[in-house]
Amino acid sequence: MNAEQGPRTGVWIIGARGAVATTTIVGARAAARGLFPLRGVTTEGPRGEGLSLPAASALVFGGWEVRAGSLLDAATDLAESGRIFDGRLLDPLAVDLDEIDQDIVRGGTRGVPPPCGAVEAPAEVIEHLAADLRAFRRRHFLERVVVVNLATTEPVFTTPEDHLTLAALEERLTSRGAAAFRPSTLYAYAAMREGAAFINFAASPAALAPAIRELAEREGVPFAGTDGKTGETLVKSALASLFRERDLQVLAWHGENLLGNADGAALKEPEVKAAKVETKDGVVRGVLGYAPETSVDITYVPSLGDWKTAWDLIHFQGFLGTRMTMQFTWQGCDSILAAPLVIDLVRLADLALRRGESGPMTQAACFFKAPVGTQEQDLGRQYAMLDRYLRRSRIAARAGGMRAVS
Amino acid sequence: MNAEQGPRTGVWIIGARGAVATTTIVGARAAARGLFPLRGVTTEGPRGEGLSLPAASALVFGGWEVRAGSLLDAATDLAESGRIFDGRLLDPLAVDLDEIDQDIVRGGTRGVPPPCGAVEAPAEVIEHLAADLRAFRRRHFLERVVVVNLATTEPVFTTPEDHLTLAALEERLTSRGAAAFRPSTLYAYAAMREGAAFINFAASPAALAPAIRELAEREGVPFAGTDGKTGETLVKSALASLFRERDLQVLAWHGENLLGNADGAALKEPEVKAAKVETKDGVVRGVLGYAPETSVDITYVPSLGDWKTAWDLIHFQGFLGTRMTMQFTWQGCDSILAAPLVIDLVRLADLALRRGESGPMTQAACFFKAPVGTQEQDLGRQYAMLDRYLRRSRIAARAGGMRAVS
Amino acid sequence: MNAEQGPRTGVWIIGARGAVATTTIVGARAAARGLFPLRGVTTEGPRGEGLSLPAASALVFGGWEVRAGSLLDAATDLAESGRIFDGRLLDPLAVDLDEIDQDIVRGGTRGVPPPCGAVEAPAEVIEHLAADLRAFRRRHFLERVVVVNLATTEPVFTTPEDHLTLAALEERLTSRGAAAFRPSTLYAYAAMREGAAFINFAASPAALAPAIRELAEREGVPFAGTDGKTGETLVKSALASLFRERDLQVLAWHGENLLGNADGAALKEPEVKAAKVETKDGVVRGVLGYAPETSVDITYVPSLGDWKTAWDLIHFQGFLGTRMTMQFTWQGCDSILAAPLVIDLVRLADLALRRGESGPMTQAACFFKAPVGTQEQDLGRQYAMLDRYLRRSRIAARAGGMRAVS
Amino acid sequence: MNAEQGPRTGVWIIGARGAVATTTIVGARAAARGLFPLRGVTTEGPRGEGLSLPAASALVFGGWEVRAGSLLDAATDLAESGRIFDGRLLDPLAVDLDEIDQDIVRGGTRGVPPPCGAVEAPAEVIEHLAADLRAFRRRHFLERVVVVNLATTEPVFTTPEDHLTLAALEERLTSRGAAAFRPSTLYAYAAMREGAAFINFAASPAALAPAIRELAEREGVPFAGTDGKTGETLVKSALASLFRERDLQVLAWHGENLLGNADGAALKEPEVKAAKVETKDGVVRGVLGYAPETSVDITYVPSLGDWKTAWDLIHFQGFLGTRMTMQFTWQGCDSILAAPLVIDLVRLADLALRRGESGPMTQAACFFKAPVGTQEQDLGRQYAMLDRYLRRSRIAARAGGMRAVS
Repeated sequence: MNAEQGPRTGVWIIGARGAVATTTIVGARAAARGLFPLRGVTTEGPRGEGLSLPAASALVFGGWEVRAGSLLDAATDLAESGRIFDGRLLDPLAVDLDEIDQDIVRGGTRGVPPPCGAVEAPAEVIEHLAADLRAFRRRHFLERVVVVNLATTEPVFTTPEDHLTLAALEERLTSRGAAAFRPSTLYAYAAMREGAAFINFAASPAALAPAIRELAEREGVPFAGTDGKTGETLVKSALASLFRERDLQVLAWHGENLLGNADGAALKEPEVKAAKVETKDGVVRGVLGYAPETSVDITYVPSLGDWKTAWDLIHFQGFLGTRMTMQFTWQGCDSILAAPLVIDLVRLADLALRRGESGPMTQAACFFKAPVGTQEQDLGRQYAMLDRYLRRSRIAARAGGMRAVS
Repeated sequence: MNAEQGPRTGVWIIGARGAVATTTIVGARAAARGLFPLRGVTTEGPRGEGLSLPAASALVFGGWEVRAGSLLDAATDLAESGRIFDGRLLDPLAVDLDEIDQDIVRGGTRGVPPPCGAVEAPAEVIEHLAADLRAFRRRHFLERVVVVNLATTEPVFTTPEDHLTLAALEERLTSRGAAAFRPSTLYAYAAMREGAAFINFAASPAALAPAIRELAEREGVPFAGTDGKTGETLVKSALASLFRERDLQVLAWHGENLLGNADGAALKEPEVKAAKVETKDGVVRGVLGYAPETSVDITYVPSLGDWKTAWDLIHFQGFLGTRMTMQFTWQGCDSILAAPLVIDLVRLADLALRRGESGPMTQAACFFKAPVGTQEQDLGRQYAMLDRYLRRSRIAARAGGMRAVS
Repeated sequence: MNAEQGPRTGVWIIGARGAVATTTIVGARAAARGLFPLRGVTTEGPRGEGLSLPAASALVFGGWEVRAGSLLDAATDLAESGRIFDGRLLDPLAVDLDEIDQDIVRGGTRGVPPPCGAVEAPAEVIEHLAADLRAFRRRHFLERVVVVNLATTEPVFTTPEDHLTLAALEERLTSRGAAAFRPSTLYAYAAMREGAAFINFAASPAALAPAIRELAEREGVPFAGTDGKTGETLVKSALASLFRERDLQVLAWHGENLLGNADGAALKEPEVKAAKVETKDGVVRGVLGYAPETSVDITYVPSLGDWKTAWDLIHFQGFLGTRMTMQFTWQGCDSILAAPLVIDLVRLADLALRRGESGPMTQAACFFKAPVGTQEQDLGRQYAMLDRYLRRSRIAARAGGMRAVS
Repeated sequence: MNAEQGPRTGVWIIGARGAVATTTIVGARAAARGLFPLRGVTTEGPRGEGLSLPAASALVFGGWEVRAGSLLDAATDLAESGRIFDGRLLDPLAVDLDEIDQDIVRGGTRGVPPPCGAVEAPAEVIEHLAADLRAFRRRHFLERVVVVNLATTEPVFTTPEDHLTLAALEERLTSRGAAAFRPSTLYAYAAMREGAAFINFAASPAALAPAIRELAEREGVPFAGTDGKTGETLVKSALASLFRERDLQVLAWHGENLLGNADGAALKEPEVKAAKVETKDGVVRGVLGYAPETSVDITYVPSLGDWKTAWDLIHFQGFLGTRMTMQFTWQGCDSILAAPLVIDLVRLADLALRRGESGPMTQAACFFKAPVGTQEQDLGRQYAMLDRYLRRSRIAARAGGMRAVS
């Protein structure tokens, strides 16, 4: 891995003091300071070898945030109230976190994301966002920046006509007042226009509307998404193949998710819940290749905090039509599970930028509930895709085919 | 698939009226009669295409059995007391089952398997067994026979010196009295000497001792084993890769198995349980590549019958050392899950015989808890191995490279 | 218990060929014919002794049903598709079931329960219903009749002004057209006017609106309800006391119910689901004496049929504020669990009638999710209430204080 | 509750720096200092009213301990490695814990409990123990002392002839060398001889052998035991009554316990495990009144630490013989669950001493897996017994019948 003084990669986070962002930053800085290894980060193992991926110490963090407060406060709260990691880790990181706070600016739409365009035209909002990114890049002499969307899920989104082509979208951007844009669309637009890679880790599909994908091609930047696969859906994507391979016919698969963090609170809103359920519910069908009776529910249970508890029931039938069941309970800490994926994705996006790739990062499908650019939902096959990509990149790197890390 | 009048394959079962054997026979005959499709048999789908695998109607059943009674009685008992399939299915199959009963002969060692060699020398026992097989083959004009070991698990087995080479073993076979052989070793010896493929679906490793594997090479027959992977271990082999790929460190994996069938009753014997636990416990280590604290327990709960209920707890740690847990409960019917694998394995063994292959069928690793000839324990990768093999075979078949189905 | 020729008790069921009704009738007749004991019926044990409760053979069944078909068909379907009991039981009961079919008449509102009063005035509907009951009573020379509501749950019901007093209700009954009555209100009215005891086993609160309770007092008949406690809620009412007694503070209790029977299908309707969730959700609060964050959800999973699968998570905190969890999974067959309670309740209602009691049967609280006439939700205390009542009744019976069984 | 300056009660703990003891002391001192209420202590609520039970601040701690180290170290370890409570609580308690350390003396048998009597005669060991107790009592001017056995479980114990009567036991005490005593027997003997109440919270039955019970009567002291009911067994004792009351026949009840603390490590020893399983396995039979197939297993899983995870499967049959299942998973922290019971028991023992009661404290049955002096295993009924006792005591206290708190 690169030393601190080598080239560094900017990580610009939308929702920079949220639980996932804070955990990511704490973990990266703890690793940079040699306090804790990057457990759970797959590119830290053999997968990352020979690719000059940025070390934890080479990641420069910044971002947009609508909430007030400091990163240290956010981290202390996660450690003490949330009990998601050991708070004693924070003492040696206090200075680092304070410094990163300097690079966290008030939310891109000046604190009031919706309704975007109410006061300014969307194009003006984008100008401000782009300026934030340019300032960050200049301040830290960053060649490459990866923008990661870790903001709260937006309500369910039916792609409007004017999001289908870049031409239509750009026409709308300048019309003050009338246009209704989701914040994530504007964030993604600004990021790509500034040549940053874009990772849509949130469950908001508006960030990667067809027009935005077209923009990525035009600007020559890579993107990945949608909705990080961290818990119940992760298990589904590993387990469903068992039923497919064994020809055990799934009759019904019900998933119940209890969680109590900010994400859970947002999901009390039926429109937001619908968006989330949509990305969660496609995985079983995707792996099986047929559509059993599936249902996914999410219930807000405040006392659980970040500790998601999910229970799934799988009802299936086998030889001679005999019906059997399997259940699982997953008790995972959402932010702890998401943070290492963010680091993996930043590294993969950085690699794609260096390789001069643009468009959907299908190699990153294993990290998402609704991967862009591929229909593959089987976890094992998704990792095989990742491994094939990394092998090719490694060969190219050895052959000098990768943009030099200058 | 072949029609009834085409070439047929003999399936000679050790433990021919046990629960798995009975379920297999009922299912195969139900499919042959068009009463129920072969659900759960993977070679019945695209995997089996273009390979001239024997249809259900082309399988001719027979075998050894120490217990008295008829197949129809055994099947009725499974349907009514065991509630494992719908008993109404049996009426149209009564004649078929009666007919198969004619080919089930008293246990190979004349009803008293252990201690083998007490009265006769092992070589004499083998002669009787071989004669049974020859008679079966002749009676039905069978070109190919697959012997499947579905007998109760034998006690834990530490390979003795004289089972390490075929020469040593064969010397011992003729010495009356002194030699202590496990029945499964003699069954396998007889099968291979008669040119049959051998499937060790039971958890008894003695059947595939090094000397026996050497015999398979000498006789040019294929074999597969050990211990069919039907339930809790199946889930382990699908799920453990999730933790490996995501770099979630497994701290402990405990599996608890409750079952009440004859297999469960045998497992009350500590020596037998030890044998079974051994094959079950290696899977997690095999997939992860390191050795977390694992334990497997099996408890006999008579009222559950064939309905195995297993509960596993996985304790793991991720980013920043946070500890999380996953549990699953598997409620599957052992015989219902095992029977379709027997049919798949018979077909694969038949294919290997036709292709003139000998030695361990590594392509069948996905069906076993302790696969022979390979260390691969990851279910996804095991199926990829199977698919590669089938693809190659299909190409060869088209090219005419497979022994003609005469 | 009484012999077949002794006095008999009429059991008139609303929804007489539904799953619970059919199972109840099959079980009662199987017991009457000596084929199977009344397992699960608590009054069959010491609780029922010395009280001259009607034997299974002394129960005469009849009722209203909107669906066509025969009882034998309904029972065969439960046995074969539903796999809820052994279908071989039905052969010796076919004649009994055919005979009972003669006493099952087309739904009280002539097949179109809602909207009641569209064609006839509610009072006219009640006249028809009462005539059905009178005919049943006369046909079988029945001194006592118990009407049991086993119909599908009605949508959520906010008691209207005119259901608060009997005077207001009776005024409304005669007004054609305008009045909107729930069918269960009319059924209960008719039953009570005819001197029958009324058991509201369904989750429909309209059957026991205040005006109807007033009617029970006027007519001198006992009633019980609401919503039979058969599965997840039963466990809650047994388990919640553990947390109360141990002063373990429940932070959250989430219950998830999956079921696939007609009840489940009806619960897909949000208004119906709301009614059901209401009775289910009060139990935890009732036992604990405070209101933790509770939620109950019900999901329709057709393949499960009558096999309800419920999963509950209890999040609680103890000494030093440490948070812990408990989960349970209940896999019970709804009709099998409900049927014995119907028999217990019929017997208790019969006893109350003989004792000349009227009003809410608080002694039967243990059988209901939302018991009438008492706030007691703790299962242990509810059974203590039942036992005190039975002891008093037994003493009175010995003292000759009970109406003679003529 | 009494103020700090009022009469105080001595709490002398066997295993005074073990996990349960440390947690108890931390919690009591935290409550005494007003830092955290005594959550989980039932006598802190209405049950304790009107009985002048000692406040947390009135409890004076001391005890025997074989391990070196300080209470603060032990507590810090539980908070940080064990994650069982919030370590920030310990700062304001450091002085208190240091002070209590002064009253913790090297294990009663001078550090080498087994084999007792090897060097000294048992009677001499008892003399030392009694001297420890007298010194403690004198040092703190304590009228009443309660000795609580929180030591590790001893191996399974078959009561020898000479433990059946006090005369036989006392004869043996003086014989040097030959006699084999369990440490707990000597501890209990010394405690009772010194007029202390004795609480056998450990699973070691030797502490309450018949001879020791006779001693309690002679010395006029109360005692309670055996084996605190904190987790899986607690749930069993609350849940089994559901099956009894509903006449649902339990076919099998299997309990699997995973734990990783010192108790768990000791239970790896088959003889110790057998002792523990014995007290755990009687509860279901005790509540049901018949003996289904039950089994209990305990597996040591180091990474779980004090976080016991238990899974139980209950297989039962109901109406028409239909078989159903229930499962539960209990994830509780053993020490956190045990500590409040220790405080409740100390208070009840103190009350019994004040009331001049001797012999088995059957009122405390609800706190034990194998309660002495009663067969009652139903949790609800056990609490009813406690409530009756407390009501009587309260009436007596008002009437002045309790020994004045001097």
